[in-house]
Amino acid sequence: MMAFEFYNPTRLIFGAGSLAQLGKAARPYGERALLVIGRGSVKKSGTFDRAVSILEEAGISVLEFSGIEPNPRLSTITRAAEVAKKGKCDMVIGLGGGSVMDASKIIAATVFYEGDPRDMFTRAGKVPRLPERALPIITVPTLAATGSEMNNGAVATIDDEEKLKTYVRAEVLYPRVAVVDPELTLTVPKDHTAYGISDILSHLAESYLNGIDGTPIQDRLAEGVIMTLLEWGPKAVENGNDLEARTQVQWASIVAWNGWIQAGTDTTLPVHMIEHTLSALYDIPHGAGLAVLMPAWMRFAARFRPDRFAQFARRIFGLPATGRDKLSLAIEGIDKYEEFLRSIGCPTRLSELGIGKITDEMLFHWAEESLRVRRDEEGRLPGRPPLRKEDIVEILRMAL
Amino acid sequence: MMAFEFYNPTRLIFGAGSLAQLGKAARPYGERALLVIGRGSVKKSGTFDRAVSILEEAGISVLEFSGIEPNPRLSTITRAAEVAKKGKCDMVIGLGGGSVMDASKIIAATVFYEGDPRDMFTRAGKVPRLPERALPIITVPTLAATGSEMNNGAVATIDDEEKLKTYVRAEVLYPRVAVVDPELTLTVPKDHTAYGISDILSHLAESYLNGIDGTPIQDRLAEGVIMTLLEWGPKAVENGNDLEARTQVQWASIVAWNGWIQAGTDTTLPVHMIEHTLSALYDIPHGAGLAVLMPAWMRFAARFRPDRFAQFARRIFGLPATGRDKLSLAIEGIDKYEEFLRSIGCPTRLSELGIGKITDEMLFHWAEESLRVRRDEEGRLPGRPPLRKEDIVEILRMAL
Repeated sequence: MMAFEFYNPTRLIFGAGSLAQLGKAARPYGERALLVIGRGSVKKSGTFDRAVSILEEAGISVLEFSGIEPNPRLSTITRAAEVAKKGKCDMVIGLGGGSVMDASKIIAATVFYEGDPRDMFTRAGKVPRLPERALPIITVPTLAATGSEMNNGAVATIDDEEKLKTYVRAEVLYPRVAVVDPELTLTVPKDHTAYGISDILSHLAESYLNGIDGTPIQDRLAEGVIMTLLEWGPKAVENGNDLEARTQVQWASIVAWNGWIQAGTDTTLPVHMIEHTLSALYDIPHGAGLAVLMPAWMRFAARFRPDRFAQFARRIFGLPATGRDKLSLAIEGIDKYEEFLRSIGCPTRLSELGIGKITDEMLFHWAEESLRVRRDEEGRLPGRPPLRKEDIVEILRMAL
Repeated sequence: MMAFEFYNPTRLIFGAGSLAQLGKAARPYGERALLVIGRGSVKKSGTFDRAVSILEEAGISVLEFSGIEPNPRLSTITRAAEVAKKGKCDMVIGLGGGSVMDASKIIAATVFYEGDPRDMFTRAGKVPRLPERALPIITVPTLAATGSEMNNGAVATIDDEEKLKTYVRAEVLYPRVAVVDPELTLTVPKDHTAYGISDILSHLAESYLNGIDGTPIQDRLAEGVIMTLLEWGPKAVENGNDLEARTQVQWASIVAWNGWIQAGTDTTLPVHMIEHTLSALYDIPHGAGLAVLMPAWMRFAARFRPDRFAQFARRIFGLPATGRDKLSLAIEGIDKYEEFLRSIGCPTRLSELGIGKITDEMLFHWAEESLRVRRDEEGRLPGRPPLRKEDIVEILRMAL
């Protein structure tokens, strides 16, 4: 039986050309913005200059913070928070991909956070001390992937001796406004477009497969967005200038992970946790890592929940249910899912990630690392099924 | 191409037993609540007393306003706003069905509204002057139907010489909290359970069929919730004590009309407008009127948008697309929709609504009345297609 609380107060301004509304959207929150960007692609594309002049026209002065890494580091974030504080910024605007938006959220909270900012993050064996206050956050995504633009989560890498890629979810991290302009994604190259699609699909499929039973509406919503992505995703990869396809994929990225579809499902994302280990250690694009791990995890998990996986196969890929057992149907659905990822250019094997020779020792190390983020009382990574260290190793081995 | 703004800051507390959380949910908004109810069914069921004691335990004193009509009248609402003002209420809590929740929203806004409260409503030929301030609103639905609990709309009947059932949508009308406890719906009788399902289906189907083209994600979301209702709705009608079915139907009522599924579809609800005329004139339950009008409107509108109606037939009812034209497929889907409504006990003909003998003059009068709420520049009720007076008469005639 579902019982849950849902809250998402982000104002979404969506559509081609909506960047022009950034000034009006930001103005209610003050006169001085920390504009956070990554390593410069928004400068090359001209988006940065446009954003600055739109903000200045609205009477908002801009302080730039550039250099957020693809897997953003807490040390960089802490430095940015100091800049925001010293610069007396009224708000933080994240202009970039998921890393930049996530970093912006954590920057906004760190400005007011007393004590060690590591304490706000999820870490196995520790109760996070969530931030209770943050500067107003505004997100302007330049990539369709993480859904950070309209949710309350943020991922970062604690980069001192603790070295851990983990996350924080807190109400104060909801952006006040998300200005989502699919035109900004037209220049995203094929590979990162595909990795973004893989990330979006993972949010949907992983939560669909790890949530509680008895959520027929949420099931249908997730299936619907997945089916739409299977149709429109390849068009965005094929022709990056297809604004309609970019628009559909971007809209999918938002609804996939803004909480609507997962409301009441009490889900967890074990594959995301394992992937974070890989991307923290080897700077692998998150969506590429997910494309490798998802099919392997699915093949591992299907036998524990054949009904749900069979439903996935039947409803999403239209596979006939008759004349075979549920697990065979489930596996055929997983094969289709993997085929799709390959068809848009995603890697689906660890050997394709450029890690080099992978030893058994490495697999065990990755499993241990993944368990440092979250563990249940029996030491397992939460999910359906909960994963012991040996399970994670088996999944990684299946992905070799 | 979709371009839109979305915002819904209502905090939803959902699940069997969640009424117990009403006190904690309301406490941040003050110490004195106007508790708005209808004509007493919540007193008979004991829900009223439970709500009062839960609020009092949380330190909130309660001022009761009872007597909201099934199609709430602005004069009653204005009287309630006076009570709230004189009673120095900090918040308005609506405990009841759609009428009570809608009335509560308008009461909360009327408290601060300067001038004639009629001016906030949509009326053909007038620009509404939307309310800009309202007391905090809390909704506690006892019926799954209108979705008012988590949206910014409210319907009321202007009951002076103007006599018009119309609506207002404004940001300040979003409830701060919706406490949605499916247990409160267990006592709803079969007929009103079915009318509620008809209302929920209409929100989904009507917006699906009247929205813009090029919304593949929203299409899938709407189809998914409709399919879930076709499965779970009959269970709630069949056995009112089936808490699981009540839960699914209530969750459907929320997502059907809280803006998620219609985001970016720029939809209108012409059938709702026509039905409002009927329920204003004859005090017909809204969902019953919709069950009569929807199939008739669908048969009228299908020829203007056969692709969309064919998609509806194919995806929702699984009807095969091959071997016939789209309009035939569309009509078969509409037949199935009507059959479903009949199967749960809804009327689908005007003659079943207890209006008595229906003359041509009455049909023309109803059409004229419907056009008093909204008209485009050519005098038509907005929708796909926009409806002239004669079109509305034709639809009504098809429903005889």
